[in-house]
Amino acid sequence: MLTDADQAFADALALRGVTVKPAAPNYLEEPRDVYHGRPGFVALPSDTDQVSEVVKACAAAGVGIQPYGGGTGLVGGQVSSEGPVPLIVSLERMNRVRAIYPEEDTIVLDAGVTVSEAQAAAEAAGRLFPVSYGSQDSARIGGGLAVNSGGLNVLRYGMVRDVCLGIEAVLPDGSILNGLKRLRKDNTGYDLRHLLIGSEGTLGIITGAAMRLFPRPAQIATAFLVVRDPGAAIALLTLFRQRAGEAVSAFELISRTNFDMMAETHPEARQPFETFPEWAILTELGTGPGADPEEMMTALFEDAFEAGLVSDGAVAQSGQQRADFWHFRETIPEANRRIGAIASHDISLPLSELAGFIAEAPEAIAAIAPGRIACFGHLGDGNLHYNLFPQRGDTRDAYMARSHDVSDLVHEMVVARGGSFSAEHGVGRKKVGELQRWGDPAKLAAMRAIKTALDPKGIMNPGAVLPLL
Amino acid sequence: MLTDADQAFADALALRGVTVKPAAPNYLEEPRDVYHGRPGFVALPSDTDQVSEVVKACAAAGVGIQPYGGGTGLVGGQVSSEGPVPLIVSLERMNRVRAIYPEEDTIVLDAGVTVSEAQAAAEAAGRLFPVSYGSQDSARIGGGLAVNSGGLNVLRYGMVRDVCLGIEAVLPDGSILNGLKRLRKDNTGYDLRHLLIGSEGTLGIITGAAMRLFPRPAQIATAFLVVRDPGAAIALLTLFRQRAGEAVSAFELISRTNFDMMAETHPEARQPFETFPEWAILTELGTGPGADPEEMMTALFEDAFEAGLVSDGAVAQSGQQRADFWHFRETIPEANRRIGAIASHDISLPLSELAGFIAEAPEAIAAIAPGRIACFGHLGDGNLHYNLFPQRGDTRDAYMARSHDVSDLVHEMVVARGGSFSAEHGVGRKKVGELQRWGDPAKLAAMRAIKTALDPKGIMNPGAVLPLL
Repeated sequence: MLTDADQAFADALALRGVTVKPAAPNYLEEPRDVYHGRPGFVALPSDTDQVSEVVKACAAAGVGIQPYGGGTGLVGGQVSSEGPVPLIVSLERMNRVRAIYPEEDTIVLDAGVTVSEAQAAAEAAGRLFPVSYGSQDSARIGGGLAVNSGGLNVLRYGMVRDVCLGIEAVLPDGSILNGLKRLRKDNTGYDLRHLLIGSEGTLGIITGAAMRLFPRPAQIATAFLVVRDPGAAIALLTLFRQRAGEAVSAFELISRTNFDMMAETHPEARQPFETFPEWAILTELGTGPGADPEEMMTALFEDAFEAGLVSDGAVAQSGQQRADFWHFRETIPEANRRIGAIASHDISLPLSELAGFIAEAPEAIAAIAPGRIACFGHLGDGNLHYNLFPQRGDTRDAYMARSHDVSDLVHEMVVARGGSFSAEHGVGRKKVGELQRWGDPAKLAAMRAIKTALDPKGIMNPGAVLPLL
Repeated sequence: MLTDADQAFADALALRGVTVKPAAPNYLEEPRDVYHGRPGFVALPSDTDQVSEVVKACAAAGVGIQPYGGGTGLVGGQVSSEGPVPLIVSLERMNRVRAIYPEEDTIVLDAGVTVSEAQAAAEAAGRLFPVSYGSQDSARIGGGLAVNSGGLNVLRYGMVRDVCLGIEAVLPDGSILNGLKRLRKDNTGYDLRHLLIGSEGTLGIITGAAMRLFPRPAQIATAFLVVRDPGAAIALLTLFRQRAGEAVSAFELISRTNFDMMAETHPEARQPFETFPEWAILTELGTGPGADPEEMMTALFEDAFEAGLVSDGAVAQSGQQRADFWHFRETIPEANRRIGAIASHDISLPLSELAGFIAEAPEAIAAIAPGRIACFGHLGDGNLHYNLFPQRGDTRDAYMARSHDVSDLVHEMVVARGGSFSAEHGVGRKKVGELQRWGDPAKLAAMRAIKTALDPKGIMNPGAVLPLL
């Protein structure tokens, strides 16, 4: 598949000192196995200047670029499966912590640092790096910023964009945007940081970031609570936020099907309840020294029980029990994968619409494909992973023809309630059609105008977010 | 000054139902009295569709638009003093609270609602609207978003952009961007919200916003503390954040000169200290029910005293004393105005650079203009208002010739330390030259490309942020 021209281009880059190799299979795959890359080259620049060199060469030759972080994206944004074969540009060699300033709660990172490495660097300095998600050992900061990743700490600290103070990036003409400001306040022109964050590599390659750090919570209390239904869960969230404020650092909703499926796929996992609940909340309070989150949690549990919001539950009594609770929660996506979803959705809703959606959706979905619905997610953020599975004993094949219709229906219901068809995973290649269908027309026109203005040759991650022209 | 063509254009808008009047003098002035508008017309649309009509008419006729909020901006962004006389578009009649959702902590506002009105609406629903600043009775939400205003609550809640979930705006072609999402998470394409916020009306007119609300702090403790120097102030901030976390809702630095000038201009104001301190901190802790911020504050005060960080201070013992403390702080800008600054600066620095700047700057400034330096600001955000005044008894005239050189010097020192020459006031017309001088070249090129792509005729707030072409 590699032409002489491809080879000549790769050789020219190598002559400028950039490491270029035929792309190994791992660069051509993605976790959901939907998009498949084609053989080509991967460039492995060692610093920002090399990224600039690579982009300039691609711009001059009209070669497309596939930016590549940790490869953990869930919407195919990291794998080009259509159009001319691009040059993959992986920032894995740019993996230095450039500087850490514990006294000002900031860290400056190469984009190729993994989320776990950033956490470790912050911990070594006695601080907390506020981003956390399942794929954090592989996911890199640059990729996380490109898709504006969410995860487990959004309720307390926000999305990745909310904890990013500044970025360095290479724009589509190869120029270097020097925006590594470590400032809380900087009103000096258009906020290109926020424009690039979430643009999924279609407007430039993020090469470095200045990120916020936080004090490490001195004390943590974790509880698994049984609630009657999602409405009660939201009332419980309101109670928690009213009483514990920003100390509420996690508020995860888990539906009955997830407990069933965990028993099916992970019988060894420690189940938090003997009788599987219809709906449960995994919540956590984290506080500084001087406060007693366990006491707060116990008082909240009691008051919620009195108020009829909670019918059962457990406050973790040890670090081991806390770890078991979280292990259970974090294994759910793997259980989902093993069972194999017919259709999966990463949706968000205004909190006041969330219970209505969960009440309405199952019947509507059953009319198309009567499978099992597993719902879990970051309730505190209005973000649900709302997935449809075959009935136990059935295979996916019996349903897959209706997968697309199910997703259309779910997204239609979500959008009608003011929600989003992509809460934290992004658009990538998977949801390009959804964005064209559901996106605001003025927004789409402005996006295209900006894309054309900054990347007139369309070399940056062609086919992601916006359709290929 | 009004031509027949101007009159005909105004009449045509009026025929479409839009209220159009000759602009009263208040639309042609700004608080610092530097920029002066020229007589023209002001359009007063009553809803978003009318804004769209007005913009379409201006786009068709090539007429410039001067968006106008509350008129409180401090960098001349609201007053056009050069180039063709624009149509002023004021959103003062769009002043409805569209909806409030206390249970999901969101409020949807017309852009013409004032900050005070938004606060009142939130309070009536038992919630807190997190934006607050001196000009809040006049400042409107749309203008606040246009400049990404800061203010007194940034430390805890962030800048205005950080508490905005979604915007509605009219783009330069008159199309309406429907982005009033009430979602914490929404990764569906480029974040035009963040691009428009802080673009100071040069990319569109914000007509509505969905904003976050918060639980009202049940208890507040306020203290005025004397610190040795800015380095000690930063160590004190670190201690406060470590111990009280997000409960630290204000951390304001005030230098000696401000106490002197307050005594000069406001002898009736209650001074917090008999002996004026060289440096003082006004700080506040706000917590939910169950916590005791006064106890936390007292313990922090004692520990800071033990550690040698604080030498004197007072924890407010009553609502009246708390109000006196804040009244003192909030009157400082007025005292500054009465004395009359030679040069004033709205700068931010990385926290670890802040003490070094404050140590270095006076001598360098004295070499140019040996006046009195008054420094106050939001230390927790790294944001200082760093202003130079005549020595007592002198007039400004003796210094004004060196005003520009002083500002150049201050900004040069700030930029060298990774800081910003505009922390919270924006660029407006006042700092267009500074942005061209200090702005990153790749950023400036991208800004111009975006401006041209979205506003090819250059009708939106011509001459603000970017120079007139």
